[in-house]
Amino acid sequence: MSNMSSTQLPVIKIADNEEFATDDALAIEEPLEIRLEYGEANQRRVQNISVTMRTPGNDVELALGFLFTEGIIKKQEDIESAAHCFIACAENKENVIQVSLKNGIEPQLHNTERNFYTTSSCGVCGKASINSIRTVSAYNNSTIENQVSADVLYQLPIILQRHQKVFADTGGLHASALFTLDGELLLVREDVGRHNALDKLIGAALSKNMLPLDHYILLLSGRISFELVQKAAMAGITIIAAVGAPSSLAVQLAEEFNITLVGFLRDQRFNIYTQPKRILLLKYEDSY
Amino acid sequence: MSNMSSTQLPVIKIADNEEFATDDALAIEEPLEIRLEYGEANQRRVQNISVTMRTPGNDVELALGFLFTEGIIKKQEDIESAAHCFIACAENKENVIQVSLKNGIEPQLHNTERNFYTTSSCGVCGKASINSIRTVSAYNNSTIENQVSADVLYQLPIILQRHQKVFADTGGLHASALFTLDGELLLVREDVGRHNALDKLIGAALSKNMLPLDHYILLLSGRISFELVQKAAMAGITIIAAVGAPSSLAVQLAEEFNITLVGFLRDQRFNIYTQPKRILLLKYEDSY
Repeated sequence: MSNMSSTQLPVIKIADNEEFATDDALAIEEPLEIRLEYGEANQRRVQNISVTMRTPGNDVELALGFLFTEGIIKKQEDIESAAHCFIACAENKENVIQVSLKNGIEPQLHNTERNFYTTSSCGVCGKASINSIRTVSAYNNSTIENQVSADVLYQLPIILQRHQKVFADTGGLHASALFTLDGELLLVREDVGRHNALDKLIGAALSKNMLPLDHYILLLSGRISFELVQKAAMAGITIIAAVGAPSSLAVQLAEEFNITLVGFLRDQRFNIYTQPKRILLLKYEDSY
Repeated sequence: MSNMSSTQLPVIKIADNEEFATDDALAIEEPLEIRLEYGEANQRRVQNISVTMRTPGNDVELALGFLFTEGIIKKQEDIESAAHCFIACAENKENVIQVSLKNGIEPQLHNTERNFYTTSSCGVCGKASINSIRTVSAYNNSTIENQVSADVLYQLPIILQRHQKVFADTGGLHASALFTLDGELLLVREDVGRHNALDKLIGAALSKNMLPLDHYILLLSGRISFELVQKAAMAGITIIAAVGAPSSLAVQLAEEFNITLVGFLRDQRFNIYTQPKRILLLKYEDSY
């Protein structure tokens, strides 16, 4: 199979010292440049915001999700247009996205990732990183009282795997998925970079005017880093479940933002790191 | 177990709808700020180069490896000192590294990652990304004729796993390891970020004056992205083996730099994506 996310390349497979030449599906990785156009009608300017290595596909969503989770753009209504920007180069036809803001809308360019972690007067540390995110996040989860049952959680990785065709092919793509509290799959986005997969998902939700995502479950196919919890917090997510392990700072950030964090979700098991109140256990004696 | 790389945090473990409260080891993630001091003796200045989320430990090596693989510093002899920079804040005691260059040594600050991918006049694309790395890499592997046997390769992940104690504890750390062509383990570095693990390894090799690393095997515990091959190319690596899958652009970059790229190395099997000449298969009939 070859599609936009994967490509066939020749490979020599070795097993027990025997070789076998064949073709193999690999996840595509290509740079994407994100440009922002903004200003008053008579003095528009274009600024290069970021270059990220990503898997092609859902590029507009990736750009919107990146700009939103970095705190650079605030809401969908501020966006005039977002599209591929074709440049006169055969090699380069789909690797630039230009997002144009409406006249007079100013992007929050001081809210870039580097500043997230360094604006505190006491320098960089985990606590300063968490505090700096609090100042740019638009949502507060403290009053959200969702619940999801353990039986629903068990099913999520199975449902995701069924949908993650490319992953099965290439072994190289991370996924982010959005589910209802009843376990219905709403959105899946994939990428070689786990932060890109989540940016694509949040950008899609932004485009569909679904924010804040406080009544859904975010499922991550891998591990949970600080950066992923940060992006989820920016989108108002209240429940994050992941197949892999969280880092220490991911747990601290989730606790600060009243996010329920579930890790190691596989084989009818999981760990709850924060806010267990949102997880409903059906005791077997309850059914009698 | 609790050490510099992991910490114990409370967790509720759920299995088959039964809950059990305990403590769990999680990989520590904290920001590290990298500062560079440079200039003539009478006009030294300090510049903030990067903030990265990393697992504490080997911070000096991380800073040196980052500066070297980004092309900002060229050789070990240019470095005057590199050390933690203690700031008056209890939360923040070990999260800043200052690297000082010798008087008059100018850092190549235009060689930052963003520019890697955008200096080409035709804009960003995989080919431009590869070309821009060629202009800053100091080494050329085209004449290196190393070989490693499949039997040695099979053993590498097993040896790494034996050494990767923290990974087993937390499920959250990536590793980069350096082996001789006979399969002897020389260096292992771990981190929540795979690029950090490799920067730590290359920074350690730089400190030990081992560059170029053209007579060793680099083993990666996970997938192979473009960025990891880029860093390996900067250090003169000729053989990369990984437990996970490569991306399409990782394969292309390895081919351009005459790097042998091996993926899916597990259970007495692997795939060769580029430069198979460096892999030696011992046919069983050869032993008779």
